Amino acid sequence: MADTRLHESSCSIARSLGVLGERWTILILREALSGMTRFAEFRDALGVAADVLSDRLGTLVDYGVMYREPYQEPGRRTRFAYHLTDAGRELIVVLGALQQWGDKYLPWPDGPTIERRAIRTDRPLHVAFVDDLGSEVPAGGVAMIRTEAYPAAG
Amino acid sequence: MADTRLHESSCSIARSLGVLGERWTILILREALSGMTRFAEFRDALGVAADVLSDRLGTLVDYGVMYREPYQEPGRRTRFAYHLTDAGRELIVVLGALQQWGDKYLPWPDGPTIERRAIRTDRPLHVAFVDDLGSEVPAGGVAMIRTEAYPAAG
Repeated sequence: MADTRLHESSCSIARSLGVLGERWTILILREALSGMTRFAEFRDALGVAADVLSDRLGTLVDYGVMYREPYQEPGRRTRFAYHLTDAGRELIVVLGALQQWGDKYLPWPDGPTIERRAIRTDRPLHVAFVDDLGSEVPAGGVAMIRTEAYPAAG
Repeated sequence: MADTRLHESSCSIARSLGVLGERWTILILREALSGMTRFAEFRDALGVAADVLSDRLGTLVDYGVMYREPYQEPGRRTRFAYHLTDAGRELIVVLGALQQWGDKYLPWPDGPTIERRAIRTDRPLHVAFVDDLGSEVPAGGVAMIRTEAYPAAG
């Protein structure tokens, strides 16, 4: 289960990590974003122990990132598939940012193994800061500013 | 230290997590991005044990995310400060994506505690996919495509 203390933090980075930050969780989401849904597929693709996988999928369901749906193949007992919710699909921005950073600063010898492209236009994509008028702003031009909702010290 | 097996993965998400995915690391980077540099400041701000903090900072230095610089206050012994490299500063995209997702899907009762703004224009910012012509593409319009560098199965 996710860490309750982190989930109750006023920092949204800490809350996100409370759900996503456990070992394997982001890699489960990577497979889910490429269409994987079945427990056995996740287990085999990642080589993760069944009890750990079950715990991580449970956390993702509890926090509304995935939902569970029963399915049955002929002559087999009912099993469960795990699908991404809208919240889960939006994590592609987080995974894209991690992917882009890893490709740049921890490069694979043969070059990037995955490209991000727009489905509609096939143009290459990157993850960036964008303002409310649609203009991209470089990482060095971004300020993080405390709002009135930021808790007072102590 | 980071997990060597993950670091050697052909998946750049897994490699990034090999460096960033340990508990506390992203929160250390959050503080570093707001200007924190000293060991005791990180320890006090996060409430993390000194040996864990030392290990995480060591990993970040080993992988070129931070660099260590000695400093000395009058009458005190030499200590070390930790500064972000260019690679480290670029992680603001990853942290911004986590922050934005947490604000939307795990909201704080009083609203977001941090806003992202452009230093030059003060306009509000979000993290998004952008194509090579500068047009934003919604998360639902993004495909992850295997390149020729993607390893063959087995």
